[in-house]
Amino acid sequence: MKIRPLQDRVIVKRLEAKDVVKGGIIIPDTAKEKPQEGEVIAVGPGKMSKEGNLQPMNVKAGDRILFGKYAGTDVKIDDEDYIIMREDDILGILE
Amino acid sequence: MKIRPLQDRVIVKRLEAKDVVKGGIIIPDTAKEKPQEGEVIAVGPGKMSKEGNLQPMNVKAGDRILFGKYAGTDVKIDDEDYIIMREDDILGILE
Amino acid sequence: MKIRPLQDRVIVKRLEAKDVVKGGIIIPDTAKEKPQEGEVIAVGPGKMSKEGNLQPMNVKAGDRILFGKYAGTDVKIDDEDYIIMREDDILGILE
Amino acid sequence: MKIRPLQDRVIVKRLEAKDVVKGGIIIPDTAKEKPQEGEVIAVGPGKMSKEGNLQPMNVKAGDRILFGKYAGTDVKIDDEDYIIMREDDILGILE
Amino acid sequence: MKIRPLQDRVIVKRLEAKDVVKGGIIIPDTAKEKPQEGEVIAVGPGKMSKEGNLQPMNVKAGDRILFGKYAGTDVKIDDEDYIIMREDDILGILE
Amino acid sequence: MKIRPLQDRVIVKRLEAKDVVKGGIIIPDTAKEKPQEGEVIAVGPGKMSKEGNLQPMNVKAGDRILFGKYAGTDVKIDDEDYIIMREDDILGILE
Amino acid sequence: MKIRPLQDRVIVKRLEAKDVVKGGIIIPDTAKEKPQEGEVIAVGPGKMSKEGNLQPMNVKAGDRILFGKYAGTDVKIDDEDYIIMREDDILGILE
Repeated sequence: MKIRPLQDRVIVKRLEAKDVVKGGIIIPDTAKEKPQEGEVIAVGPGKMSKEGNLQPMNVKAGDRILFGKYAGTDVKIDDEDYIIMREDDILGILE
Repeated sequence: MKIRPLQDRVIVKRLEAKDVVKGGIIIPDTAKEKPQEGEVIAVGPGKMSKEGNLQPMNVKAGDRILFGKYAGTDVKIDDEDYIIMREDDILGILE
Repeated sequence: MKIRPLQDRVIVKRLEAKDVVKGGIIIPDTAKEKPQEGEVIAVGPGKMSKEGNLQPMNVKAGDRILFGKYAGTDVKIDDEDYIIMREDDILGILE
Repeated sequence: MKIRPLQDRVIVKRLEAKDVVKGGIIIPDTAKEKPQEGEVIAVGPGKMSKEGNLQPMNVKAGDRILFGKYAGTDVKIDDEDYIIMREDDILGILE
Repeated sequence: MKIRPLQDRVIVKRLEAKDVVKGGIIIPDTAKEKPQEGEVIAVGPGKMSKEGNLQPMNVKAGDRILFGKYAGTDVKIDDEDYIIMREDDILGILE
Repeated sequence: MKIRPLQDRVIVKRLEAKDVVKGGIIIPDTAKEKPQEGEVIAVGPGKMSKEGNLQPMNVKAGDRILFGKYAGTDVKIDDEDYIIMREDDILGILE
Repeated sequence: MKIRPLQDRVIVKRLEAKDVVKGGIIIPDTAKEKPQEGEVIAVGPGKMSKEGNLQPMNVKAGDRILFGKYAGTDVKIDDEDYIIMREDDILGILE
């Protein structure tokens, strides 16, 4: 199933924190702080201004991005977790 | 009975979560997390800008959509539950 | 007594929930959830924009409408309860 | 003493609830819900827009009006209680 | 010492409530409700709009005014208490 | 070390309250209410409007100013305490 | 790894407070107040206005800046802590 985001929204797949840390102790899922890195999966067409101009997006599918801890809305699609956020919630692009 | 939404509002029928999960245990209604998928039932004419221009809608009746957990207002029409939300609360269209 | 609403306000008479439910048990007044349906009794002239243009109303007296649970201000006129709300609080028109 | 309200403000004299109810029991002052009806005593010149245009007022001294429970600021002038509110807090005019 | 208020600010000297009430009982300072009347001591030049136009003030030094209970900022200048508020916090002019 | 404030920000040095009051009792530091007077140390270039016009500042270095109790952000530079506030937080200029 | 900030965002490396104070007592990490000085590491292209004009940035990589205590979002990149803030959160430039 595919989602087409509306306006300036972006669908992001959170990058999983590695399950093992130095010294080999496995950190259970709840103790791990959620990572703030993700990959852009799909991108909306951009925001339509009141004058009817489309404001182009600055990110594209495949970009690795940083985002704030409380950015966007968590959704589950086909049993996978995604975050749908506005482009404005993206802090930067990792290169 | 039919409802005609005003402005950029959209009437949405929440898609029911399946009542049975893997292994066949039935989850009672209160324990189920409300799904965030729905079907658009009716669509308003769009928002009128202050200059008097109608801003066209991006969704139409029949679209399957994703929306945030706290989007819109729950209403009961003819004993059926619907959500009336603004188009801006719709996160994306499922395809 | 008649009230003339100002601006884009609308006077609404809440439609009473039926006092008897299936099987004939009478539900006392406090246990009933307030219905969100109403009839428009009077309609203001519309909002005046800063440029001095009157923005026309989309509802008229007699319309049956749906509104949010916390819409508007309850007022008592001649011992009858009404809600005065802005047109923007109206979710849709029942047809 | 006279007050001249600034901008789109209106001075309102609350109409007293009748002190006696059916059957003749006198309700003490604190148990009475404050009425939401009042008489307009004085009216400001209207709001000045940023472009320098005066937006005319829709109410005038002598009008009987309805207002929300928490509208405006209570003031005491010459030992009389008044409410000074913005015209936008007025719900409607009683006719 | 003199203060020149910036923008649309106004320096106000609160008018003291009379210390004696009917029957001659003196009310101590803490039990008295702060009066909401004051005298305008100094007036700023007015607000500068984004287009660079100065919006003229509607009050002048010497005006007796009414203001809301929580208007402005209390300041002490030369051991005297004043309130510096924006013109918009002034409810009306006493005449 | 020198700080150059950005936009319409102003660096202010709080004027210390005198440590001795009438009768010669010394008030310890914590019991003293922080004074709301200060001296402007440095001034930003002014706010850039969206149209690209610089809005000139109304205060300059050396001005003695009054400001609200909770104005600005406390910063420590070279072991000295300063407040960096926006010009809009300045209530007036002492002359 | 490099981050390219979006819009008017700035990546800042907090300058560490010196671990030793006068007299040589070492202050543990948790007791130290976080410093509000930092170095700009990377700078976004600037904010795009609705009319499509890019508003140029006032800071550049390498600038030493002052910022408010609660400015921006903490992020960890390659095990280093950074703050990503909007240019508007920068109080001034140290020279």
